[in-house]
Amino acid sequence: MSVDFREDGAAALEWAARYLERLPELPVLAQVKPGELSAQLPASAPEQPESFGDVLRDMDDLLLPALTNWQSPRFFSYFAVTSSEPAILAEMLAAALNQVAIVWRASPASTELELRVADWVRQLLGLPDGWHGHIEDTASTSTLAALIAARHVTGRNAVVCSEHAHSSVEKDARMLGMELRKVPVDEELRMRVDGYDLSGAACVVATVGTTSFASVDPVRELAERAHAVGAWLHVDAAYAGSSWICEEERWSADGVELADSLVVNPHKWMLVPTDCSLIWTARPDEWREAFTLTPEYLRTDDEAFSLADFGPPLGRRFRSLKLWAVLRCYGAEGLRAILREHIRLARLFAGWVEESDEWELVAPQRFSLVVFRRKGTDEENEELETRVNASGEIFITHTKLDGRYVLRLAVGNARTTEDDVRRAWDVLNWEATR
Amino acid sequence: MSVDFREDGAAALEWAARYLERLPELPVLAQVKPGELSAQLPASAPEQPESFGDVLRDMDDLLLPALTNWQSPRFFSYFAVTSSEPAILAEMLAAALNQVAIVWRASPASTELELRVADWVRQLLGLPDGWHGHIEDTASTSTLAALIAARHVTGRNAVVCSEHAHSSVEKDARMLGMELRKVPVDEELRMRVDGYDLSGAACVVATVGTTSFASVDPVRELAERAHAVGAWLHVDAAYAGSSWICEEERWSADGVELADSLVVNPHKWMLVPTDCSLIWTARPDEWREAFTLTPEYLRTDDEAFSLADFGPPLGRRFRSLKLWAVLRCYGAEGLRAILREHIRLARLFAGWVEESDEWELVAPQRFSLVVFRRKGTDEENEELETRVNASGEIFITHTKLDGRYVLRLAVGNARTTEDDVRRAWDVLNWEATR
Repeated sequence: MSVDFREDGAAALEWAARYLERLPELPVLAQVKPGELSAQLPASAPEQPESFGDVLRDMDDLLLPALTNWQSPRFFSYFAVTSSEPAILAEMLAAALNQVAIVWRASPASTELELRVADWVRQLLGLPDGWHGHIEDTASTSTLAALIAARHVTGRNAVVCSEHAHSSVEKDARMLGMELRKVPVDEELRMRVDGYDLSGAACVVATVGTTSFASVDPVRELAERAHAVGAWLHVDAAYAGSSWICEEERWSADGVELADSLVVNPHKWMLVPTDCSLIWTARPDEWREAFTLTPEYLRTDDEAFSLADFGPPLGRRFRSLKLWAVLRCYGAEGLRAILREHIRLARLFAGWVEESDEWELVAPQRFSLVVFRRKGTDEENEELETRVNASGEIFITHTKLDGRYVLRLAVGNARTTEDDVRRAWDVLNWEATR
Repeated sequence: MSVDFREDGAAALEWAARYLERLPELPVLAQVKPGELSAQLPASAPEQPESFGDVLRDMDDLLLPALTNWQSPRFFSYFAVTSSEPAILAEMLAAALNQVAIVWRASPASTELELRVADWVRQLLGLPDGWHGHIEDTASTSTLAALIAARHVTGRNAVVCSEHAHSSVEKDARMLGMELRKVPVDEELRMRVDGYDLSGAACVVATVGTTSFASVDPVRELAERAHAVGAWLHVDAAYAGSSWICEEERWSADGVELADSLVVNPHKWMLVPTDCSLIWTARPDEWREAFTLTPEYLRTDDEAFSLADFGPPLGRRFRSLKLWAVLRCYGAEGLRAILREHIRLARLFAGWVEESDEWELVAPQRFSLVVFRRKGTDEENEELETRVNASGEIFITHTKLDGRYVLRLAVGNARTTEDDVRRAWDVLNWEATR
């Protein structure tokens, strides 16, 4: 093996630095066809070692055209995210340390730092004292864990959520063999509180910031109804929860203090790369009972700290290191400034839509998401989306509302400026009229 | 935010390089008490930004003493692992790219490279053509996925495994609400083939390389019995499967070609840091049905590639990049040489145990694991384990066999030399006699 860690490391670092610099010039959505990269990759692994320089060369020649650039300042799809510089470096350090925190003593550092940064974020979001937080890979897994805990605690098998809840709720319920009941929304796209039966419900899932519309379910009322029948209340604030670091955004946290569990993803809107999903529970003892086994060959006297006892996987990598680096290198004030700017930019874009005769908002503007459409047919909007994405200038996605094809623009990358949002508006108008 | 990516990156790289160099001098097991690190960490996140230098300083001052050094050449616990240099750099690059491969077009590069490297490893291990492989975070998740697929395909609810199967099988079954039946082993610690009922079994789990003893279940006979009653056969070769890159180790792969699914963890014995668990299935269409929310009639070209449709989480990070870097920078021959040396070192140690009057092997020596004990009482062995681990010189773990306390020495770090294994033997003898 011919890798020189310092020399090849410097080359890798320079590759990453240049990539981050080149982002404004790269097409946002990968402009390749399915199978195009595969056709260029060797059919088999090499028998003899190659150099790390060969790997970097192929990153330029083969991988770069097949990247969708989530780090681009003009990435406005799904929810836009950022892998910030301190987090990138922290991921390298985490890989060098290769901590595998299966039990406390296998990594006191990873275990205790994870508990601490989860508590730092709990405080920043204004969540209750005493909640137990840890990190899972994704909100899919965090919600899976919540459903497992809810079934364990209640002995019941049904999950109730809004028709606009994230697809992972449906998938999680299916994987667990639980029954899913979807509830309609009101005119503000909020999960309805009345008119359906909660009997047999293990868990009610309330969403703060739905994926399609960033709508906010009435958490307080749902929590009260759920608890009245002995069900668990899980809050999915994977995207919008980060906004609670800003006091003025806490309107959407109303009632969250009544939740039995809550998921917020720092890899969505807290400048940390995938994967970093924070899950808290107000009922840590019952939660832990749903997951702990502690076989003999893993038994130590430090079990109180072992985070594998709080979630599905046994193996746990050192994910807290990147979150710790971000919280320290930005500071709470630095993070607030970035999120406030994203929210300002989304409102600015929404204002342009409202002022225009050719466009319309189709859902209340919330957080850093704008849901809108060109006045005209569904086909026209779909073709418009295809054209703007094919231009490489911006990348947006769509959703459906009452059967209508509608467009989404999500601001959320730390490199995005007002110029980028204005460019998005220009590209949309240009492609709509040419 | 005051991080300079090139300057702070160079400092982070130097920190990692020095860490890797210092490993032989660092205690292997963290010599701290529960809560000791927590007491030194600030109670809250900083309001104002700190420098990345502050983070690196705290890594030295606070985190370093609380690390259990999995990268140490004298780490012999659980299964020893390696995060190799090309993989560390690849993790940094993956964080810089921050690909989130929720669907094909969200990252053609991550999706297609993952499929390709999974196929590279399939070939290296001598597995059948046509198997579909992808990466999950851990074997816990890979086996969870296999149980979900098995329940989906069979419509049944029972899981059958050896009493020595990994704890994750029991935990996965419990989380899914499936019934678990544990089967006794024969005198070679192999799961028994006869004398128990497979009716109602969704899945039989066979293990190649159990965690406690590295014993090998009779996969062929178990596959035949499982298939005779319509059950799914899942093989857990998370640790030992990597050894199949060496032709002479394929004796333990006998019958694996009959499996419906197979998990092998490159983050165990293929020089990749946690997390990287490869899961293959021989029945990709049925497997996919268990996870996809996209009905057949809505499927597009792109979706054929979307790997979130093949496992539990929606969010997927670019894990294949590190496996690709390792396979290329070592080459198949380089990896074989390292695994062969680990197996040689384990046999050497087992030989010393056998030649000694004070020690005894307690299970057949398999792969790179030695299971042994000091002749004497369980208490003496337990105290010995505590003393050698407290010395910081080596880190070993224990298990139980027929109620007896037995010690495990697992060779598996790429930096481990014959001197390190000899040192382990010397430390054990020294602590046993002083």
